Amino acid sequence: MTRVFNFSPGPATLPEAVLRQAAEEMLDWHGSGMSVMEMSHRGKEFISIHAEAEALVRELLGVPSNYKVLFMQGGAIGENAIVPMNLIGKTGKADYVVTGDWSKKSAKEAKSYGKVNAAASGEASHFTAIPKQSEWKLDPEASYVHICSNETIGGVQYHWTPDTGAVPLVADMSSDIMSRPIDVSRYGLIYAGAQKNMGPSGLTLVVVRDDLIGHALPICPSAFNYQTQAEADSMYNTPPTYAIYIAGLVFKYIKAQGGLKAMEAHNQAKAAILYDYLDESRFYRSPVAREARSLMNVPFKLKDDALDEAFLKGAQAKGMIQLKGHRSVGGMRASIYNAMPVEGVKALVAYMKEFEAQHG
Amino acid sequence: MTRVFNFSPGPATLPEAVLRQAAEEMLDWHGSGMSVMEMSHRGKEFISIHAEAEALVRELLGVPSNYKVLFMQGGAIGENAIVPMNLIGKTGKADYVVTGDWSKKSAKEAKSYGKVNAAASGEASHFTAIPKQSEWKLDPEASYVHICSNETIGGVQYHWTPDTGAVPLVADMSSDIMSRPIDVSRYGLIYAGAQKNMGPSGLTLVVVRDDLIGHALPICPSAFNYQTQAEADSMYNTPPTYAIYIAGLVFKYIKAQGGLKAMEAHNQAKAAILYDYLDESRFYRSPVAREARSLMNVPFKLKDDALDEAFLKGAQAKGMIQLKGHRSVGGMRASIYNAMPVEGVKALVAYMKEFEAQHG
Repeated sequence: MTRVFNFSPGPATLPEAVLRQAAEEMLDWHGSGMSVMEMSHRGKEFISIHAEAEALVRELLGVPSNYKVLFMQGGAIGENAIVPMNLIGKTGKADYVVTGDWSKKSAKEAKSYGKVNAAASGEASHFTAIPKQSEWKLDPEASYVHICSNETIGGVQYHWTPDTGAVPLVADMSSDIMSRPIDVSRYGLIYAGAQKNMGPSGLTLVVVRDDLIGHALPICPSAFNYQTQAEADSMYNTPPTYAIYIAGLVFKYIKAQGGLKAMEAHNQAKAAILYDYLDESRFYRSPVAREARSLMNVPFKLKDDALDEAFLKGAQAKGMIQLKGHRSVGGMRASIYNAMPVEGVKALVAYMKEFEAQHG
Repeated sequence: MTRVFNFSPGPATLPEAVLRQAAEEMLDWHGSGMSVMEMSHRGKEFISIHAEAEALVRELLGVPSNYKVLFMQGGAIGENAIVPMNLIGKTGKADYVVTGDWSKKSAKEAKSYGKVNAAASGEASHFTAIPKQSEWKLDPEASYVHICSNETIGGVQYHWTPDTGAVPLVADMSSDIMSRPIDVSRYGLIYAGAQKNMGPSGLTLVVVRDDLIGHALPICPSAFNYQTQAEADSMYNTPPTYAIYIAGLVFKYIKAQGGLKAMEAHNQAKAAILYDYLDESRFYRSPVAREARSLMNVPFKLKDDALDEAFLKGAQAKGMIQLKGHRSVGGMRASIYNAMPVEGVKALVAYMKEFEAQHG
């Protein structure tokens, strides 16, 4: 068995130790005589798995006690509707900061539920930078301000936390959750699809401050209502049990590695190897402004687009896959989430040098 | 390792062969160097897994070509809102036939989206029978008629297909999908959570006739809009990839067993062992009318409620778990889906006889 270096933007590579444990426990979890997949979500075995996963989220992210941790379904695209259905009713309007394809999609979807104010947009820079907060046009009456902390397609990431005063800050952290320490108390709500840094697709993490719960629009489905789910401990409907179990194993792995500070150091080191090489090379380049460069998704361009196919083919032959950039921006993209080992990035840079030597 | 006989109503027992294969392929699916969990949903590997799962659904259920097969999220409770958000807009109203806790919940949720007519209810019989169609008060202008083909809590199941004329029949088949052959052409839409007969929780199967797609209310989230998902081959948002993979393995297992006719014979044989014993016993009894008895969920009562605890404890000691009935009806419930082997039911009846001999 040879494992590849998988640079997919998501679903993405997972720690090998987690996959090994999942394989070993597949037919019989801890002597229960069952797979986790087969467990009633109301049984004591799964309740313990669920409680441990929640406790680890609280510990790793430092979630204050006045926030609920919910495990939901529908991914971040689901939350694009679920967030406004739950929060926009307070004043009927919300601010959106658009920094790329994902936050653009979020803003568009929210329009079905209230008035959406485009508080700022990075469109002028072709989404290669994040607008400074001094340029944002915030509405003090907004129900919330929505940002996307890391844009997987453009590869821009906030390296600062916006200050939205009394208006709750809502962040889609799908692609950088658990990659670095954050101050949860600065946010009203954080959501994230699991399939980048936490586990399999089909699970959404929501961390929401208590006072934001209970204002859902009447058309909000019960299964996607934060109040219903908070009151039922995320079990108003059957939760995605196996995905929660895998995420719990990933959380334990992160903790054993030293928690989010260790993850941040690991991610900074990996990204530096790649960006340093991009900056010194005359064959490759990063299109993103230095202060907004993502530690998770690193888009880059070759000097000549016509070489893209050969580059991808050569990478594939060396066991490095999913390096093709999103069709909307072209070029390449290396997604280097928590579970990408430094060896993967070193192997990529070694290959890039070799390719440059051949084609430069 | 000793595997238990797991009588959970869902998530529920899965075929051991499926779990073994999943364990073996966990770190490296078919030489890809990745777990299925790690695969991009846009990559050729996962696209092949997804296409095969869909093809097997079409083959096993005999889905006509003018129906779409969608893999979604949110479970049946999610669909309680998603169905009316997509379908009720046609005339603004819908008929619901209430035969137990699940269809009652469906009818209640639909009221947020249009006018709900309670066309019939089994409440007078305490949900131990299904009202005859001659007693239903159907509205010819309804956008659809909703039924639940099998109620997991009360243990009643339709053994006939309602005739709703030109009005589309919508069925929640969460707990009996793939357990017997059905004529899909008699339905406008079928939905089912995966966690009883198909795989892990977190995956919803939707089979919907083409002409019912495209009438969603403006407040329907894109991720839950049948049109958006049909146009994107269920990949408008990242689908629950691992759950689809496991469901695909289960579908292959069902096919290898002889398909849905073989499943029906297997399920009839298992249920007969249990019901025959319940009918001959003076210690246990089935509360359900004979013509409505479920082949999937068999609730039963002991002569004396005070013995319930001892019964459950004794069963657990023999490796038979999750036999406690739902709190709303009390007593016992044996859920005997496709993957429950006949040995499990025989072991249960042997234990019931032993318990009766001791306490009768």
